[in-house]
Amino acid sequence: MSSRDIASATRDASRILATLSADQRRSSLVALSALVLSEKAYVLLENKKDLQAARNAGLSASLVSRLDLSKSGKYEEMTKGILDVANLDDLLGKCTQKRELDDNLILRRVLCPIGVLLVIFEARPEVIVNITALALKSGNAAILKGGKESKHSFRALSVLVKKALTATNIPEDAISLIESRDDVSGLLAQEEYIDLVIPRGSNALVKNIKNNTRINVMGHADGLCHIYVDRDADLSSAIPIILDAKTNYVAACNAVECLLIHESLVSSFLPIVSAALNAAGVTCKIHGSSIMYAEQSELNIIATDEDFDTEYLSLTLSIRTVRDIDEAISWINTHGSHHTDAIMTTSASSATKFQRSIDSASVFVNCSTRFADGMRYGLGTEVGIATGKIHARGPVGLEGLMTYKWLLDGSGQGAADYSSDGLRRFTHKDLGITQADNY
Amino acid sequence: MSSRDIASATRDASRILATLSADQRRSSLVALSALVLSEKAYVLLENKKDLQAARNAGLSASLVSRLDLSKSGKYEEMTKGILDVANLDDLLGKCTQKRELDDNLILRRVLCPIGVLLVIFEARPEVIVNITALALKSGNAAILKGGKESKHSFRALSVLVKKALTATNIPEDAISLIESRDDVSGLLAQEEYIDLVIPRGSNALVKNIKNNTRINVMGHADGLCHIYVDRDADLSSAIPIILDAKTNYVAACNAVECLLIHESLVSSFLPIVSAALNAAGVTCKIHGSSIMYAEQSELNIIATDEDFDTEYLSLTLSIRTVRDIDEAISWINTHGSHHTDAIMTTSASSATKFQRSIDSASVFVNCSTRFADGMRYGLGTEVGIATGKIHARGPVGLEGLMTYKWLLDGSGQGAADYSSDGLRRFTHKDLGITQADNY
Repeated sequence: MSSRDIASATRDASRILATLSADQRRSSLVALSALVLSEKAYVLLENKKDLQAARNAGLSASLVSRLDLSKSGKYEEMTKGILDVANLDDLLGKCTQKRELDDNLILRRVLCPIGVLLVIFEARPEVIVNITALALKSGNAAILKGGKESKHSFRALSVLVKKALTATNIPEDAISLIESRDDVSGLLAQEEYIDLVIPRGSNALVKNIKNNTRINVMGHADGLCHIYVDRDADLSSAIPIILDAKTNYVAACNAVECLLIHESLVSSFLPIVSAALNAAGVTCKIHGSSIMYAEQSELNIIATDEDFDTEYLSLTLSIRTVRDIDEAISWINTHGSHHTDAIMTTSASSATKFQRSIDSASVFVNCSTRFADGMRYGLGTEVGIATGKIHARGPVGLEGLMTYKWLLDGSGQGAADYSSDGLRRFTHKDLGITQADNY
Repeated sequence: MSSRDIASATRDASRILATLSADQRRSSLVALSALVLSEKAYVLLENKKDLQAARNAGLSASLVSRLDLSKSGKYEEMTKGILDVANLDDLLGKCTQKRELDDNLILRRVLCPIGVLLVIFEARPEVIVNITALALKSGNAAILKGGKESKHSFRALSVLVKKALTATNIPEDAISLIESRDDVSGLLAQEEYIDLVIPRGSNALVKNIKNNTRINVMGHADGLCHIYVDRDADLSSAIPIILDAKTNYVAACNAVECLLIHESLVSSFLPIVSAALNAAGVTCKIHGSSIMYAEQSELNIIATDEDFDTEYLSLTLSIRTVRDIDEAISWINTHGSHHTDAIMTTSASSATKFQRSIDSASVFVNCSTRFADGMRYGLGTEVGIATGKIHARGPVGLEGLMTYKWLLDGSGQGAADYSSDGLRRFTHKDLGITQADNY
């Protein structure tokens, strides 16, 4: 099938999917969860082929481990994840605004699916069922492309997805699965049929996709997260927060990469925090003028300018002092990646100022940047963390996959009657929303 | 100033603007409204230069009329429009979701400005103050480029905008005004500083801009709107609705361009509706197999296939019959422009089916497509009508110019404590929102 055929078939399926009841979409997820569980042996057998190929190719242990569906609890977590999404509130057709424009002329704004999503993700086999679950629950058709290192697992799970769809009378093209990169580049040209591209993975992947399509892209770029320790921070609670943000999972986009310290704290706080970081194995790259205040350790070295624009994704942290909160804000807005930034402070006014002024998707006070995550926010499975500002921002769950439309129910009205010399006037009265206003 | 300098200065101003109070942003609009009113003589003098130049260049009467700010009531409407926006509810910092993640770990989602908008619009002088009002009210900085035919009016109003900004201590770069097309192409490359491009005007303009930038574009493309007359429509109310939708303002994007009629009605309804349309001066381009049922008139001619993909913006209407509502839905989703489509029916189930299935920003029942408009929806001034599906859809008012961010207020928490072997569990309890949760 050509890219155009795939995209067009998915579009056709999306038209049907958007009109199915919440029960029907939910039941397909329940069926998928059961099928994935009952076919565990088959899926793990295929998954082993990916693991073997990855080991043969000399891939890193962490990449091999990410591929492995047989790790303790991971498979059951995956099937439970489908049910968790199935049991979320259904948003399709939900009325979010209702207004009387005139007698018997009622405007409603209701949530509806975006349409057709193209989701490109890394070699994590469980993601195929996560995304399938989110897409069906939100009424979106989707074209999925997984990383090539997971191709056997991907194919096995694809078979189960198609089976679950047909078993529950959902067009099987509602979820299309593609394997080759060539298909992706062809699909990026199908703006007539595809509404949104969601790339997950490296910053380079996201940039490459943005440069090669006119379809809207909701991608997450770098996570260059900051923690700023303000003059009046509670230093004893700041240290464990900084350690958590740096060391809990260094490869995560919400790990902290740069620590800013109010200059009045440099002599008292920098030695303590650098010692604590060093003890956890963290290399501190410290701005030249402050390094003399750090604990003596070979793990503390002078930072280059470039370090402050670097997402390490490793046990490394940039550190510098700032004159005041204004310099911290300006620094973060200039050097950060608008993902997640935090302030440590006991001052409510500094906290508010920081939260208002920092132009990032998530802005925290006195807690770890690692909380920036759909599961932790209580959104259910997330499709990714968006660092753009359009449509959805930060962790993207079901709601980020919905758009809305305006429904106007009249009784014969024309617009001319409401012109300045017409007989009617708009009443524009906001009305309470009831269950019956959902469609 | 280079494009980069303009964009960068506007970005800097946006950082300040986003932190100003509702009162301060409102007062600048009040000042602008007063200033525009008191400087009426000056603005109209400059406006006359545009009118003269337009007449000298032989522009159409309708274009000249669109330029003319001295038309009865137009100037006062413009100044009142600024006050109307000033008096809308302020959305900046409004809390739209609040959730306890754990004791003393509270997540809020708050509305915030998108940042820097680049708005490109047609030669309508009043639009500069409309957009300025919407931008300041929503806390967005904006770069504005108006049509060249309105350049004298544009310059005069620019002077007043800058004066009002400085008089109320808002950075004057918060609203940047540019005159040349060269500047636009330079600005389209400033993705580092500009968050959203909003082109208003012709479909060709919107397409050209989409093809020349990687910044997100919220544009309105064609308005190829349909009315479908279902088998059980109330025909006597359908005719005035169709006349209103076609003739109330033919150049509008929400005017109807294609009428679909259930085939059971062809012999009874087509002669009546075509006669009514002809009487109003409308040329009906009728699908070949149905034309024999139309009233005999030289205004009724056989349609070509192309006609059904044409936005006329004139007293012309395509007409064809369809077998049933399913064919109507499929036709509209394929040939429409996802702007506004309406069904005439007395059946509640057909109405719901149509509203669920039609993939358009506005889907109406028993009223004119001409209601698709921000003022009529009660949104205040609109920045445009979006036909995309991402971020905002249909008429875009203040809310469409906002994005959100996530604020998390903690008391020392790290994420490791919430891992599967950690001591804490998320409570994920939705909380009621009070005024104090706005920031």
